[in-house]
Amino acid sequence: MAAMQIPPETFLIDRKSVLPLQVQLRRQIVLAVHERRLQPGERMPSSRALATHLGVGRITVTQAYGDLVATDYLSARGRSGYFVSDRVEDLADDPAPAPPLARFDWAARLDGRNLAARRKDRPTDWRSYPFPFLYGQTDDRLIDLAAWRECAVRALGRRDFGALSHDQYDGDDPELVDFIIRHLLPRRGIKARPEEVLLTMGAQNALWLICAILLGRGETLAMEEPGYPGLHEILATLRANLVPVPIDQDGLPPEAVPEGVSVVFTSPSHQCPTNRTMPRARREALLGMAAARGFVVIEDDYEFEISFSGATSPALKAMDRSGAVIYIGSFSKSVFPGLRLGYIVADPAFVAEARALRGMMLRHPPGHVQRTMAYFLSLGHYDRQLKRMREAYAERRQVTAAALDRHGLDKGTPGGRGGSSFWLRVPTGLDSDVLARTLKPQGVLIEPGRPFFRGGEAGAAFYRLAYSSIAAQEIDEGIARIARTCRTLAAD
Amino acid sequence: MAAMQIPPETFLIDRKSVLPLQVQLRRQIVLAVHERRLQPGERMPSSRALATHLGVGRITVTQAYGDLVATDYLSARGRSGYFVSDRVEDLADDPAPAPPLARFDWAARLDGRNLAARRKDRPTDWRSYPFPFLYGQTDDRLIDLAAWRECAVRALGRRDFGALSHDQYDGDDPELVDFIIRHLLPRRGIKARPEEVLLTMGAQNALWLICAILLGRGETLAMEEPGYPGLHEILATLRANLVPVPIDQDGLPPEAVPEGVSVVFTSPSHQCPTNRTMPRARREALLGMAAARGFVVIEDDYEFEISFSGATSPALKAMDRSGAVIYIGSFSKSVFPGLRLGYIVADPAFVAEARALRGMMLRHPPGHVQRTMAYFLSLGHYDRQLKRMREAYAERRQVTAAALDRHGLDKGTPGGRGGSSFWLRVPTGLDSDVLARTLKPQGVLIEPGRPFFRGGEAGAAFYRLAYSSIAAQEIDEGIARIARTCRTLAAD
Repeated sequence: MAAMQIPPETFLIDRKSVLPLQVQLRRQIVLAVHERRLQPGERMPSSRALATHLGVGRITVTQAYGDLVATDYLSARGRSGYFVSDRVEDLADDPAPAPPLARFDWAARLDGRNLAARRKDRPTDWRSYPFPFLYGQTDDRLIDLAAWRECAVRALGRRDFGALSHDQYDGDDPELVDFIIRHLLPRRGIKARPEEVLLTMGAQNALWLICAILLGRGETLAMEEPGYPGLHEILATLRANLVPVPIDQDGLPPEAVPEGVSVVFTSPSHQCPTNRTMPRARREALLGMAAARGFVVIEDDYEFEISFSGATSPALKAMDRSGAVIYIGSFSKSVFPGLRLGYIVADPAFVAEARALRGMMLRHPPGHVQRTMAYFLSLGHYDRQLKRMREAYAERRQVTAAALDRHGLDKGTPGGRGGSSFWLRVPTGLDSDVLARTLKPQGVLIEPGRPFFRGGEAGAAFYRLAYSSIAAQEIDEGIARIARTCRTLAAD
Repeated sequence: MAAMQIPPETFLIDRKSVLPLQVQLRRQIVLAVHERRLQPGERMPSSRALATHLGVGRITVTQAYGDLVATDYLSARGRSGYFVSDRVEDLADDPAPAPPLARFDWAARLDGRNLAARRKDRPTDWRSYPFPFLYGQTDDRLIDLAAWRECAVRALGRRDFGALSHDQYDGDDPELVDFIIRHLLPRRGIKARPEEVLLTMGAQNALWLICAILLGRGETLAMEEPGYPGLHEILATLRANLVPVPIDQDGLPPEAVPEGVSVVFTSPSHQCPTNRTMPRARREALLGMAAARGFVVIEDDYEFEISFSGATSPALKAMDRSGAVIYIGSFSKSVFPGLRLGYIVADPAFVAEARALRGMMLRHPPGHVQRTMAYFLSLGHYDRQLKRMREAYAERRQVTAAALDRHGLDKGTPGGRGGSSFWLRVPTGLDSDVLARTLKPQGVLIEPGRPFFRGGEAGAAFYRLAYSSIAAQEIDEGIARIARTCRTLAAD
């Protein structure tokens, strides 16, 4: 950020105070300098502007400024005005602040919640690691930034902006909804009307909204084990009951869903984290069971767009004739994750409820972001970007499989039409937490398996190796390091 | 949106189906045309591209296309390819869809929630009304759209985008946080460190997060009466107890806060909806009471930036030495409401908890929107826009006051250093709901008073008249219509 002209509004006068106005102003400036809120070289407001703002005589300001020049806080540059002096670097640091009153006991007030304590530890500087086999981030080189920028500029044109600058309360951008309905959902075999679609701040937000509505009064949700750790966190926060259902080579076995469950969560096209696909017969069985037992099915259709060996199977939602399926889609993996845009497709009564809750929680995803996405889709950029990602991921998948083979590591189960990760076993006797910890200083990031399991130690034997964020040419060396580390740990 | 080239991914083949591939493809195209998902003039995928995508022979596609030309669904234009025919307008509408299975009973499943039923009725087409005296929207003419666009383009430059395209989990843009701390908060007398600041999707999102953390286990919140209706809704959803505290000419009287309250919500600089300012002595008393009784104070500092008669009084948070105050700020009124960006300033333990909950609900406000805001601030556009808004609102306030006087309507209590609305009494004997309803067909929108009151009929005597969305030259006629309607209703 460029050094700026300091606006007059930075300063306040308290007329009720016993201190003279000039003293107050001087003290404020001094304090601001000590606290680094005013930086050397920044330009102070003109004495006229500051006097006007504070409602004091101009002489008050000029005298304060003069004092501060004499004490080296400011420097005067003739007609250019007053600047924060470069000499302030030499000044003593903050004087001891006034002793506080007894502090409000936030620890006691928040006791029993402690969401912050439960959070997973994610390295935010992952981009500085040379071998980041992390899921859910994207390789900048695959994103058509120029196209996104062009669409953003269009969406901020006067015609569109007039519609988007306003608080839309709980509405959605009709152009984006229209595109999703006419062009995206049919690719999954889904037909939907506008009242069956709700935009969200990404799949995470969709999942939160759905669970907040359906759970929280002692209901039980069944989900795949291993499964999506983010859902574990949401359910713990809502104090909902969770039944983990161990999967087999075809994903979730419907017959293993116990009685009394009111919601089933599944990612049938591409199971998280194992990438397995649920066959058609199972999908029909699950839907039949939902109709018979009256439970809701949440379908997380993440990653369907980056399948790269032929057309994917239709979504579960496409086969849903009773309205029991709530479908979650997202643009995070196909556009960029920081975008935070996704959607729910469900029965209109549920969508109305979710819309009202979303409105209460955050009103709506920013309108200009929605419109930018609508342009990105309708101008064909989305499809071109998907194609580019698919090709890059297909190459990286090949390279990864070859490297795992070459270095003698588990290659995972075959199949999986795409996606961006492998679900792998560590060598017998090793612990994936230990492996991940040992790899980190070597510049390699992997995802250990425990968080994907609701309970027990089963996850110690697994890890996820994603290739969405690592260039093809780095993969072999990263995997070589994994193999070496495994051998070292096995020898201990 | 321009008519587009239809991508091959729009179509699916189900290899398990008993229907021949060509028949499936023809049926899909026919269905898509009937359902208006394919529009006249749109261009079909080339037979080669579609065949490749579906994994079928090219002849299958060409034959299907040929059949559809013969039946007028498609037209062939030689080398240009195949297009959806203009003749489809004549085709019969959707055939009756397959009868559904028994529908999932969503009404029963959602019974007891019914957020959707509780929602206030807001006209989303308010912009088409000539006299919209509505609060919270903005006049497009006051927004420097070109400047915002320029900042958005910068934020989408490669340097910034590399940082912003990624999922930031629950982090915030450090540049925006830095600007808020160094330049915005000091204008309210607030000193804060980065760990005391959390960005949100606007003030609504901030309020939701705070209430979700502090309430919901039977606690009680006290708030001003009349007060902000959005908070009534949030508390009802969280099933928290609400104690309304009637205000006087100086806002919330601290001595009227009953025992046993664990949170007090107040907008002391500019009370919603009466615009009254809480004097310094009361602020000190409230903070003293908070320290003595151990309750949290939520300060909603909305609209401080559009005060236009001199410097505003410091925020309550500026006087908070125990950390009991949670401060809410927002860019909605000063930038544009559809932006959805705001912030919380509070004790680090509370901020950490709120950050974790925000992360679980929606991860983070979109990174590129945060960075655009950082540029908008640091390049001085924000301050220029504020100045423009203040001048426009000051003029409109004068015009409104004069018109109310001229037409013999209540002018509200004097004072109120700014803001964008009047809180007014209807003539004796009238009901503001009836007044609002009667004004609507005349093109005038006002906000009746009942929603601002937690209980009883006190609100029937009041209405809010905002001038943020109506041009100065329209105000007099709008108020003339209000006056005429009042006379008509009084005569009934």
